[in-house]
Amino acid sequence: MSLLVVGSVAFDSIQTPQGHVDSILGGSSVYFSLAASFFAPVRLVGVVGEDFPAQYKQLLEDQSIDLAGLAEKPGKTFRWEGRYEGAMNEAQTLDVQLNVLGEFMPDVPDAFKDSPFAFLANSSPVTQLHVRGQLPDDTFVMADTMNLWIETEREALMELMASVDGIVLNDDEARQVSGEHNLLEAGRWICNRGPRWCVIKKAEHGAMLLGPGTVFALPGYPTASVYDPTGAGDSFAGGMLGKLAETGNVNAQSLSLALAYGTVVASFTIESFGSDRLCAIERQDIERRLAEFRNCIRLPQ
Amino acid sequence: MSLLVVGSVAFDSIQTPQGHVDSILGGSSVYFSLAASFFAPVRLVGVVGEDFPAQYKQLLEDQSIDLAGLAEKPGKTFRWEGRYEGAMNEAQTLDVQLNVLGEFMPDVPDAFKDSPFAFLANSSPVTQLHVRGQLPDDTFVMADTMNLWIETEREALMELMASVDGIVLNDDEARQVSGEHNLLEAGRWICNRGPRWCVIKKAEHGAMLLGPGTVFALPGYPTASVYDPTGAGDSFAGGMLGKLAETGNVNAQSLSLALAYGTVVASFTIESFGSDRLCAIERQDIERRLAEFRNCIRLPQ
Repeated sequence: MSLLVVGSVAFDSIQTPQGHVDSILGGSSVYFSLAASFFAPVRLVGVVGEDFPAQYKQLLEDQSIDLAGLAEKPGKTFRWEGRYEGAMNEAQTLDVQLNVLGEFMPDVPDAFKDSPFAFLANSSPVTQLHVRGQLPDDTFVMADTMNLWIETEREALMELMASVDGIVLNDDEARQVSGEHNLLEAGRWICNRGPRWCVIKKAEHGAMLLGPGTVFALPGYPTASVYDPTGAGDSFAGGMLGKLAETGNVNAQSLSLALAYGTVVASFTIESFGSDRLCAIERQDIERRLAEFRNCIRLPQ
Repeated sequence: MSLLVVGSVAFDSIQTPQGHVDSILGGSSVYFSLAASFFAPVRLVGVVGEDFPAQYKQLLEDQSIDLAGLAEKPGKTFRWEGRYEGAMNEAQTLDVQLNVLGEFMPDVPDAFKDSPFAFLANSSPVTQLHVRGQLPDDTFVMADTMNLWIETEREALMELMASVDGIVLNDDEARQVSGEHNLLEAGRWICNRGPRWCVIKKAEHGAMLLGPGTVFALPGYPTASVYDPTGAGDSFAGGMLGKLAETGNVNAQSLSLALAYGTVVASFTIESFGSDRLCAIERQDIERRLAEFRNCIRLPQ
């Protein structure tokens, strides 16, 4: 089934203990789309400037990502510059240039509106609500958010929560929005605000799914090959919703399995700078690593 | 099979966001013994002062813990005072009075020396080596450690590592001792120093087992009932080694299952101050919760 994503397209400049790169392809919708494209037809809505090269569009189209919703506006593409240190669990933002993303209010092309699954990548909840309003009620919609909106747009964020089927956010954000230190309590607090499902990402520590009668916990994929965590969260969401869209059913079982696919896809993303590794692998690499992951987490009888 | 533990017996005074208690029974060997006693006959080696009440000895003996190795020395019992805040992942030590523990060099009673399994709870690696030297070579010995010894007794700690079968430590300690940010690398670094097995405790995030050809990862038991994390690490080790001693075989399978038992037993410990909850449950409560935990972490096909 088709999967819609609305999010950023960016040029990223990244420093990690392993090295640095300048102005490479990035952005939430890019990582999400590439990760999801292994499982389902992806439709991307976003905006770029006049400086966005044809080769990057080609790279996305080569993965069968539909770019009919990628607007090109006068000006420059969104730029992000960040640095990771130590255990690389958190990025330090060095510079942000919103450029064409600043004023962008996404319009979902009519041809995209029948997508059964949709992901509203991290952006202002006002923008996310604007997109949610363009989609049919029965679309399965998940949304991401971040600390900035929890602080500055809390009211719109609460409205968003009440209008989507799932929220994906990291552990610090779950604690911040709920005021609960305990992640189980934080997740329940969120589920009580509207979304049927809440997925809490814990970086190297894995992820947790909460829903009706459901608590599912997954450790992180044990990997020593961390080059660049940029895009890990969006790749996780892409792998998860991609697998869910492939399955077509939303329930505790399919979502739990989808979390594992998200974990595995994200484990590839962080093995190189940018999306290089994600573009180099095939579905069978994902399946092979999922089998390995199963071995690592299988509790003997 | 019998399980020997050498560690502290203490009076703990604890503050958490849920309340506070003064001078309750604590110490690494106490939590370990109580946790392990569900699975195997436990033999405790430690020291108390003249102020140690008969009722606490009775409490331990009621769980069939053999106190033939519990020395009573002139002076006062070891005291620890600590506080937990926020997510309660780390204790802030407010006061330590070593008292009789200060000069204590444990002697393992001859009758305890045929224990097939032994745990050297956190103490100076010099003391731990002194105990290791009293045990037969074929005893399966695991040892805990802490940041203090990594800083101040590194050489003795390295010698200890080379003389035991397993090391149990938390994620910060694993990073500190190895100089590796990545936990998989940190665990491998430790395994390369001698111990066949390395168990890394990650508090609410679960635990990881590394060994020959083995990486096993377990998320934390999802619980909202955290009253007092004191003793969680030693209860985890007690549940783990207790289950291992019950099983009698040491391999990747039995250790993985033992990790899950350790996780579940520790989840009870933190539900009350001190050892109250641990003393109130029965084996069937552990089995019931293990079954729940299996449901929470089972990855669908």
